Amino acid sequence: MISKLINEIKKKDAPVVVGLDPMLSYVPSKLTEKAIADKGETTDAAASAVLEYNKAIIDAVCDLVPAVKPQIAMYEQFGVPGLIAFSETVNYAKSKGLIVIGDVKRGDIGTSSAAYAPVHLGTVEIGGKKVPVFDEDFATVNPYLGSDGVKPFIDVCNDNDRGIFVLVKTSNPSSGEFQDRVLTDMDSTLYEAVGIKVNEWASLSMDGAYSNIGAVVGATYPKMGEILRRIMPRSFILVPGYGAQGGTGKDLKPFFNPDGLGAIVNSSRGIIAAYKKDRYAKFGEDGFADAARAAVIDMIEDIRKNAFR
Amino acid sequence: MISKLINEIKKKDAPVVVGLDPMLSYVPSKLTEKAIADKGETTDAAASAVLEYNKAIIDAVCDLVPAVKPQIAMYEQFGVPGLIAFSETVNYAKSKGLIVIGDVKRGDIGTSSAAYAPVHLGTVEIGGKKVPVFDEDFATVNPYLGSDGVKPFIDVCNDNDRGIFVLVKTSNPSSGEFQDRVLTDMDSTLYEAVGIKVNEWASLSMDGAYSNIGAVVGATYPKMGEILRRIMPRSFILVPGYGAQGGTGKDLKPFFNPDGLGAIVNSSRGIIAAYKKDRYAKFGEDGFADAARAAVIDMIEDIRKNAFR
Repeated sequence: MISKLINEIKKKDAPVVVGLDPMLSYVPSKLTEKAIADKGETTDAAASAVLEYNKAIIDAVCDLVPAVKPQIAMYEQFGVPGLIAFSETVNYAKSKGLIVIGDVKRGDIGTSSAAYAPVHLGTVEIGGKKVPVFDEDFATVNPYLGSDGVKPFIDVCNDNDRGIFVLVKTSNPSSGEFQDRVLTDMDSTLYEAVGIKVNEWASLSMDGAYSNIGAVVGATYPKMGEILRRIMPRSFILVPGYGAQGGTGKDLKPFFNPDGLGAIVNSSRGIIAAYKKDRYAKFGEDGFADAARAAVIDMIEDIRKNAFR
Repeated sequence: MISKLINEIKKKDAPVVVGLDPMLSYVPSKLTEKAIADKGETTDAAASAVLEYNKAIIDAVCDLVPAVKPQIAMYEQFGVPGLIAFSETVNYAKSKGLIVIGDVKRGDIGTSSAAYAPVHLGTVEIGGKKVPVFDEDFATVNPYLGSDGVKPFIDVCNDNDRGIFVLVKTSNPSSGEFQDRVLTDMDSTLYEAVGIKVNEWASLSMDGAYSNIGAVVGATYPKMGEILRRIMPRSFILVPGYGAQGGTGKDLKPFFNPDGLGAIVNSSRGIIAAYKKDRYAKFGEDGFADAARAAVIDMIEDIRKNAFR
């Protein structure tokens, strides 16, 4: 699967992923009000407003970027209708030729991870029949439980040609609370220990020069990105935290390999809610999709100019 | 919420929770075959077989135990119909007077945790109306992202009188890979560092002598349980790993406080698939719910006899 992602990145000359994290406060009020008029103040209404918003954004950016990353929390918050909207967002994005990274951050003991993995990255077996369910191309995975919580995802990557990004150093302000603690046995940090493990796991699912097993490292921590880039040379790094969380094009240099590959940069709020920023205010609320397109074009230009060594 | 759980534990004299982790291989073939005959080899069929299985088990054990713990992975694996079955399982258990611990292991950056928290522990706001969605009493939370990923859950606990159990030392074989690593700054392990943080978070949501902020520590690691019991004196410990994963009544001693409280012990497979064990084989596949009841009675007896100091 990573070779497919690399092809799409090269084709579009854009190592960029648009995060589809539709907080209800981003969705233009016209869409929300219409949905509430149709369906009342229900999770159904919220989910259908979100889906319509997503589709317009996907239409506006699908020729520019290789991938989208729906954050499942933003759908799960609306319960069953929200998860229907998640599933339809995945399917709609795929129908437009986009690769889909499910930002699900699942991770559990072996038997439970073995339940999460196929529903997100393949098919579930029922009475001998294999049924696709959410069926994303990539998923994000939490490493806190160690190898036996991650292995079921690696197995499914190999069975179905999919990929994962394991949380290594997350973009949020308090990520250092545990991730930056120094371990006595190696005199380096927990995030480095997780990075070393990701590099081991990477060898279990190679696909060309890169592995289907990647890592999440926040744009907000470029120095740590540089260290982790060296520790995991064959792993793609999914880089959140660009834009609204504070990362800029120059901060991204350390995340790329000398071959110009090895990273894909996510922006969520900065793209999908671009219409709320002064820079794109001219598009107005109704022009939210055009504003998203303009913000993607600017982001790609920033990365092409500033992010490569 | 923790005081409600304590009341129920005292009333039933059983610090025991039944894990509703319905792998399809546990569900008696009669239920699965009937569902497939009705609905085909679909996620709908799988979900409805699982729901029927759960209801029979809930009916059989609800007078014996204070709580059930559905593991959402086992429902999410069947996509949208699976999550409908999760929701109906939560509601059915509550209608039988049980406290529900959603074993969701969610945890993300602040904005995403702020989306997960209300859907699992309260109500979601849509157009000014507060809508309950999954609405469990407790949820499990992954700490890898640090305080800003956990705080939104604590806020919701305070707003809606709910509780969480933070993963500290998990029951699975590879949990030590990261959790047991020694940190230079305190010359003790990551799980102890997480335990110290849980103890800080505990003070933010006290409810009587105990806090709504608890911890998950596996029965499979009783020595670490003893250390963590001291580090987090006001936190309830949710103890998985009893029974099928290898923990026994005697292993549970260190998890309890001298007041006889402070721990609630989970068994999943050992109860809900008891009919597959030699000891309960006399009940047969059709008697799965009676077998579950017999296994709960044995578990409670083991704990009453062996688990207290």
